Amino acid sequence: MRITRLDAIPVAVPDPPLRNSWGVHAPSFLRTILRLHTDDGLVGLSETYGPDVVTPTQIERVRQVVVGGRPEDTQRFAYRLRWPEIAGAIEVACLDLLGRAAGRRVCDLLGGPVRDRVSYGAYLFFKFAAEDAWGEVGSPDQMVALAERFVERFGFTTLKVKGGVLPPLQEVETMVLLRRRFGAGYPLRLDPNAVWSVETSLRVAYELERAGVWLEFLEDPTSGIAGMARVRERITLPLATNMCVTNWDEIAPAVEAGAVDVVLADHHGWGGLRACQELGRLCATFRWGVGMHSNSHLGISMAAMTHLASVVPTLIAASDTHYPWLDDDVITRPFVFKDGSLALPEGPGLGVDLDEERVAKYHEAYERGAVRQRDDTAELVKRDPGWLPIKPRW
Amino acid sequence: MRITRLDAIPVAVPDPPLRNSWGVHAPSFLRTILRLHTDDGLVGLSETYGPDVVTPTQIERVRQVVVGGRPEDTQRFAYRLRWPEIAGAIEVACLDLLGRAAGRRVCDLLGGPVRDRVSYGAYLFFKFAAEDAWGEVGSPDQMVALAERFVERFGFTTLKVKGGVLPPLQEVETMVLLRRRFGAGYPLRLDPNAVWSVETSLRVAYELERAGVWLEFLEDPTSGIAGMARVRERITLPLATNMCVTNWDEIAPAVEAGAVDVVLADHHGWGGLRACQELGRLCATFRWGVGMHSNSHLGISMAAMTHLASVVPTLIAASDTHYPWLDDDVITRPFVFKDGSLALPEGPGLGVDLDEERVAKYHEAYERGAVRQRDDTAELVKRDPGWLPIKPRW
Repeated sequence: MRITRLDAIPVAVPDPPLRNSWGVHAPSFLRTILRLHTDDGLVGLSETYGPDVVTPTQIERVRQVVVGGRPEDTQRFAYRLRWPEIAGAIEVACLDLLGRAAGRRVCDLLGGPVRDRVSYGAYLFFKFAAEDAWGEVGSPDQMVALAERFVERFGFTTLKVKGGVLPPLQEVETMVLLRRRFGAGYPLRLDPNAVWSVETSLRVAYELERAGVWLEFLEDPTSGIAGMARVRERITLPLATNMCVTNWDEIAPAVEAGAVDVVLADHHGWGGLRACQELGRLCATFRWGVGMHSNSHLGISMAAMTHLASVVPTLIAASDTHYPWLDDDVITRPFVFKDGSLALPEGPGLGVDLDEERVAKYHEAYERGAVRQRDDTAELVKRDPGWLPIKPRW
Repeated sequence: MRITRLDAIPVAVPDPPLRNSWGVHAPSFLRTILRLHTDDGLVGLSETYGPDVVTPTQIERVRQVVVGGRPEDTQRFAYRLRWPEIAGAIEVACLDLLGRAAGRRVCDLLGGPVRDRVSYGAYLFFKFAAEDAWGEVGSPDQMVALAERFVERFGFTTLKVKGGVLPPLQEVETMVLLRRRFGAGYPLRLDPNAVWSVETSLRVAYELERAGVWLEFLEDPTSGIAGMARVRERITLPLATNMCVTNWDEIAPAVEAGAVDVVLADHHGWGGLRACQELGRLCATFRWGVGMHSNSHLGISMAAMTHLASVVPTLIAASDTHYPWLDDDVITRPFVFKDGSLALPEGPGLGVDLDEERVAKYHEAYERGAVRQRDDTAELVKRDPGWLPIKPRW
């Protein structure tokens, strides 16, 4: 089986105005859908960052490397492609192909699942009002109301608040209210994306402890391995990261510094599904937890993430996903959460197929759209001309 | 595809009297050949330690776990089987099955090979005289003569001496003579299996340096993470181990102590091929080298080791193997070294088939034989009644 063609289709998909410490999501998010064709007529699917990250020039280089190659050769591709975000996307498409060819699920090509359903958490954002189903979320009370709707509709039991938006003590209050509203069976997380100083991070941990609110983990309260280590040596709460440990070279310094307790893996950034299995082993070896990070994504990535979470034994915490914020998907059978979890797609391969009409629609939206680059700061500056993403802000 | 039957066939295969710091090899070494049958008539092969290590009671437990299961579910098997030496052997048989079912090589199920030939080194032992092709090797000069024959016959360019047999300064002299006989293109290794004190290890390193003999690595000069770290902080030579880092729990302490530079992986002991890929990634992350360890083995393991070495990108040093010491094999097409390397078996699966006549012959040899347990010390005590494997001996 040889790869004969690579299609890379940029799409722009509607997105609510979700807030974070860099600013706010634009009205659309960008992704690239990959189709890998073979000489025996199979098509493997994948999904990666938008064309602002994985550029047309890079895609052309990917074509030169993979066309004519064998889908088995994902390691050779990875070395030749260098960029882990591309190597990972190509690996997923190759695994989809190999699974389709063998009549096997992707998880069955990777050592087999250790769980048949994968748990996800509610990824709760402060947001501006917009023409969406969710309304404005600008206060602790509104965040509790949003959490209630996510729990009601999707069955999530893990609640993660994207912080770094309100002043720190208001975000503490948000967690206190969530804890009052939801019992101890609802693990809480707070992720201010490194917008706090070390001192503010310590203050937040102190206030949470004083209020009797335990977090499953506090994610990236401050920036950098040194800053995280300084926070970690003085608080009890576990610290998670998807910012100070985002590649292999950051692991040894983080181990040495004692910077973190949990690393959030992301196959899009770490180089693929096998790379994240290796990361899972590495985390377990150092008694770090391993979780899963999410950017805005579509159903192809949802499938890949679910297969991956099923084959990383130590991924015991609920994974992040932006999927509930999606109004529409590009696959024929969109995923439906039940009790906060997804069943493993039945396959073969990833177990998802493209809805070509929707792909065309969102590709056209990309072609016609104004958004050519993710820039959350620019979006917020439209609302607040003097705003700057200073870190630490507090 | 479901697993319907597991055959475990103990075999005893002739072995020369190779010496090491525990004593000397018995006239036979023991292995267990595994055959995993499926409901669609496929048979997957594997090979592991003899019945002294993987006992009939354990095999019975393996049967209870794997029969009725799917060969895809190697991770589930690993958790249920607990013992990594069994989980690894079952994984290899399952990969052989999956490869045969899909018409693909084992290496192609694991991310694809990054090299098409795998380099092995000459594994040179001091030995007693016996009715074998090799004669006595009891002095530095005789070791050079042995090395000449290994280089001539197999094309090896890496020369590893199993030390811990002669007094340390004689082993230094051995390395000096090997370096004089073979130029800088022949990396040298010395492995006394932790029979030296820290002080003796430092002396050996000093004498080697004084003689101008660089080793690719010095393997396990002394025992334990603490001892290795004390040697390592004071010498320039890289230190390798297959003794103080032999499982996941020993990695973090070895990193913290700075105990080693190179870890020698072994899929038989670490839990299989995927586990060793994960170990390879882990070693690369901490800038440790990764190599491959060998016990006495047959052609099934030779195939598994070769597939594995082809898919661990950072395994750049020649692998260890006892295969050249084998007079006969249980596979239909025994491996032949060319230029010190092996081509990847063509598959499907591992790419080897059993020679059932030979399997029967060596199984009968096991049934009839006196050797029921590997005990190198007992073998040496037969020759030298007062001998004890004291460590450190020097």
